[in-house]
Amino acid sequence: MFNKQLAEVCDKKNNRLCIGLDVDNRKLEINTISYMDGFIKELIEATIDLCPVYKINLAFYERLGKAGYDILGKIPEYIDNRSITIADAKRGDIGNSSKYYAEAIFKTLNYDAITVSPYMGEDSIQPFCEYNDKGVFILCLTSNSGSSNFQNKKLGDKELYLHVSELAVTMNVNNNIGLVVGATQNNQMEFIKNYSADLPWLIPGVGFQGGSLEDSIIIGSKNSSTPIINISRGIIYAGNGTIDNIRIATEDYTKKIRNIL
Amino acid sequence: MFNKQLAEVCDKKNNRLCIGLDVDNRKLEINTISYMDGFIKELIEATIDLCPVYKINLAFYERLGKAGYDILGKIPEYIDNRSITIADAKRGDIGNSSKYYAEAIFKTLNYDAITVSPYMGEDSIQPFCEYNDKGVFILCLTSNSGSSNFQNKKLGDKELYLHVSELAVTMNVNNNIGLVVGATQNNQMEFIKNYSADLPWLIPGVGFQGGSLEDSIIIGSKNSSTPIINISRGIIYAGNGTIDNIRIATEDYTKKIRNIL
Repeated sequence: MFNKQLAEVCDKKNNRLCIGLDVDNRKLEINTISYMDGFIKELIEATIDLCPVYKINLAFYERLGKAGYDILGKIPEYIDNRSITIADAKRGDIGNSSKYYAEAIFKTLNYDAITVSPYMGEDSIQPFCEYNDKGVFILCLTSNSGSSNFQNKKLGDKELYLHVSELAVTMNVNNNIGLVVGATQNNQMEFIKNYSADLPWLIPGVGFQGGSLEDSIIIGSKNSSTPIINISRGIIYAGNGTIDNIRIATEDYTKKIRNIL
Repeated sequence: MFNKQLAEVCDKKNNRLCIGLDVDNRKLEINTISYMDGFIKELIEATIDLCPVYKINLAFYERLGKAGYDILGKIPEYIDNRSITIADAKRGDIGNSSKYYAEAIFKTLNYDAITVSPYMGEDSIQPFCEYNDKGVFILCLTSNSGSSNFQNKKLGDKELYLHVSELAVTMNVNNNIGLVVGATQNNQMEFIKNYSADLPWLIPGVGFQGGSLEDSIIIGSKNSSTPIINISRGIIYAGNGTIDNIRIATEDYTKKIRNIL
């Protein structure tokens, strides 16, 4: 259900861009919380005609305490159903606690989707999936160096991240599960595609981390699925982080993506 | 460093009990947030002479929005360094985001320790460990059924959870890393002990989930380490959840633990 909505919004905007609102007041020399709040609102208004998805990493807001928590609640209001919102929270706990995390993100904060960590297995993920109009992106193969510690290790006949893909497919009865797949080596993306049916992918690692935009879209679009290309620093710190520069970077990424589609 | 403090507090109170403050206003018929806040404060005052550690599962508070977030910030004030506080948050993200989660939990909210998920590997855990007066409990083998999906699967010569133990030991240069080990079958606990050196264990699964208190303490105490026995529902919902019944249940668990020590 969610996956259909996601594809529709992406098709309507003819884009696969996800702007990562990892707004770091230290890096942007944003000195007050109210300025940060206003900056985020302006950034959304300046990009939302082009951008179908925004991803909000909760760490950047939780560290600011109550004021950050307030902004987290305002972002879905600013976006106001014009694009999809993903709370990049990487939650996952025993069933009863996951149920409450789902309530926190989907009801209290009103985000459209969440990222979850699969370490605790199926019953830790299931409570999120029961909201069939909400999306659940399960960490599969991440773009950081630590993916080599466990994700990339073989567990029986295939790597752990492929087992995660496989479980995700079996759990996708409400058509609302996706995967987080780092834009890493092409052969890994191809392997995952073989095990991930038509699940949409949320793809970090393009831009500053060096992943290929073209390969991510081409491989991610196979099996009629929707790849979402997350760009954080490459857009929100574009130039000197002014709204004009952010707009230009958004147009630039949009153009590149449309050329590949 | 943290691990030494943890052992000292436990020794001073001659206890290994951790009360899980998974306060669920629905189950306890707590109708207002201010009543919930007062209940938690009273619960702490009624148990803190005996209880060396409190574990706070963030899901139960995040679902309540701002009001829940407020209570999360007050709990360390109520405890006021008389016991250790563990934020059961199960966080874990790429390095820069984990750095901000660490700031959120250790500085903004002022908890003494956190639980983290190992799926994203070493660089996702490291930023938490850099606070050497703060503790980091890494999920190893959890007590839910989903532990069979990945944790219990063999990855080369041994199960994934043993690889996690092994990494935790190599990362423990600041003596502030512990493991979350469900009170499951004894042989699994024995295996983990062989791979976890003197790391302290946070042990859920005793009580309602049926794990053995005696085995958890005896095996968890090997290698001169400190096992922390988490009890949530068995204490906070004791009898009808009145403070008197909570006190009685705390005394009862304390007595059982002291008999085993």
